[in-house]
Amino acid sequence: MQKPKIAISIGDINGVGPEIAIRAHEKIKEICEPVYCVPRALMDEAALKIGIEELDFDFLCVDFNFSCTIRPGEAAADSGELSYKSFKLATSYAKSGRADAVVTLPINKKAWEMAGVPHKGHTDALSDIFGKRGIMMLGCEELFVALYTDHVPLKEVASLIKQEPIAQFLEEFYKAGGFESVGVLGFNPHAGDGGVLGSEEEEIKAAIEMANKTVGKELFFGPLVPDVAFTPHSKGKYAAYVAMYHDQGLAPLKALHFDESINVTLGLPIIRTSPDHGTAYDIAYKLEANTKSYENAVKEAVRLATKDKKESFV
Amino acid sequence: MQKPKIAISIGDINGVGPEIAIRAHEKIKEICEPVYCVPRALMDEAALKIGIEELDFDFLCVDFNFSCTIRPGEAAADSGELSYKSFKLATSYAKSGRADAVVTLPINKKAWEMAGVPHKGHTDALSDIFGKRGIMMLGCEELFVALYTDHVPLKEVASLIKQEPIAQFLEEFYKAGGFESVGVLGFNPHAGDGGVLGSEEEEIKAAIEMANKTVGKELFFGPLVPDVAFTPHSKGKYAAYVAMYHDQGLAPLKALHFDESINVTLGLPIIRTSPDHGTAYDIAYKLEANTKSYENAVKEAVRLATKDKKESFV
Repeated sequence: MQKPKIAISIGDINGVGPEIAIRAHEKIKEICEPVYCVPRALMDEAALKIGIEELDFDFLCVDFNFSCTIRPGEAAADSGELSYKSFKLATSYAKSGRADAVVTLPINKKAWEMAGVPHKGHTDALSDIFGKRGIMMLGCEELFVALYTDHVPLKEVASLIKQEPIAQFLEEFYKAGGFESVGVLGFNPHAGDGGVLGSEEEEIKAAIEMANKTVGKELFFGPLVPDVAFTPHSKGKYAAYVAMYHDQGLAPLKALHFDESINVTLGLPIIRTSPDHGTAYDIAYKLEANTKSYENAVKEAVRLATKDKKESFV
Repeated sequence: MQKPKIAISIGDINGVGPEIAIRAHEKIKEICEPVYCVPRALMDEAALKIGIEELDFDFLCVDFNFSCTIRPGEAAADSGELSYKSFKLATSYAKSGRADAVVTLPINKKAWEMAGVPHKGHTDALSDIFGKRGIMMLGCEELFVALYTDHVPLKEVASLIKQEPIAQFLEEFYKAGGFESVGVLGFNPHAGDGGVLGSEEEEIKAAIEMANKTVGKELFFGPLVPDVAFTPHSKGKYAAYVAMYHDQGLAPLKALHFDESINVTLGLPIIRTSPDHGTAYDIAYKLEANTKSYENAVKEAVRLATKDKKESFV
């Protein structure tokens, strides 16, 4: 079996993305065939900026007609246009089957705005392209957390805690994520404490039963007590968690695994992962950026792309 | 200046409390004068159970008329009655000024019920005794988190995010806790992201300004982005956090500092701290219980009892 092809969207050329891609290339090519969606001339320029005379012959770039000058730390219309073109190309590669997954390096939202890009960021762009919102999952090998609700005002979340949509979410998450044991968090303090502190846990419990029935095995567990689930004694029990709302999952996750965490969009026709950090303009091309999150993003893209096949590259 | 007197409520005699008190005695007497609110005969029996022939002469017990037999791991009416009497005695010692603070070792709620105690647990008992709810704060030296709302169903919290009561809470927290810089968390994902993801942050912001004006200095900061506040790069910036709801503060806190964390009740006429664990019946008298949380509870009681005095024992 061939290694999976991963289309790399290069992100903002004035941020840490290109440098990270170059520095991590040797490592990631062990588990995949990276296809960098960016003109080769620009990557040569980026390499020079960090003291590399010549990129490897296997640093495969998919050229397209675009030229600009790298200006580290500057949000600009041309850097915005370039990162959008790179993203679109990577996405279409995956959509058409020429790549097995996309890894997106960080873009600058202001640069996209300056370039007149009609989306706020990657997640919005993916929703627009595929006509549905993907499942947002963050984390690393030690701890993945999928968000049942993500960018929703907290006061609106309670009304969304309903059996059917949660069960549907769980089933979709299983299909897309492939985790074999999933802890589902409660909603209220102490997971409602038997109803004294809220009753949304009844809906969650019914959803868990429903989803387990559909997938045909005991796979989802809970509702778990939210402030206990992430303690040292509890967090190893499940391969992943489902959080009911944004901060319930992300505050403990980022407290524990800030530097290694990645961002995954599941449930779309393509697989997409990305490092969980921004362009870090202040340290671009200074060889200070941590490549760990990007490497983990590639690793998870490979796992997801191959999870239904026999061989494992991760 | 004398060391502060700390009244120790011994907790459930069939749990890990008495053993922890004995094992940590040498250490805590360096920073305080512990007064153990429990019959000496029972402590002698507890000491024997962990292989100690005779307790130190300075293991000062305040005797009262009560006898029972220690049965490790058993929730019983007599253990419930004893732990309640010990708690009442410790509280009255602090109330009358014979002690500077109370540290409560863990009770068993079922044992209290069996003994006919008219409160659910320590926190309820304190509310009943003093006619007001204290401020619940958890954590350790590295990270303390006070809860603006605690045992409230999550869907009801949004309606409590109002300028005046939050400002009042912050002022009271400052008076009782004495922290010189406090980060106040937002309520919504990304702290509302400029209003796109909820508007409760406006109330929080106004409350912070109001409280800073009242205390006469720039002491409260925020509203902070909840899932960023506990990351390695952020969490050292403030001496304590105020969380808007239970799991927002406790999930990341317990993820990071489960074993060292303690429980503090502030804003009552007496100072009360306690280890943040239960009776751990399964390991009682097996010398396995971790004394760290109890030691931290004593340390914080001493800090709070002496914070307005010049000398420091911690």
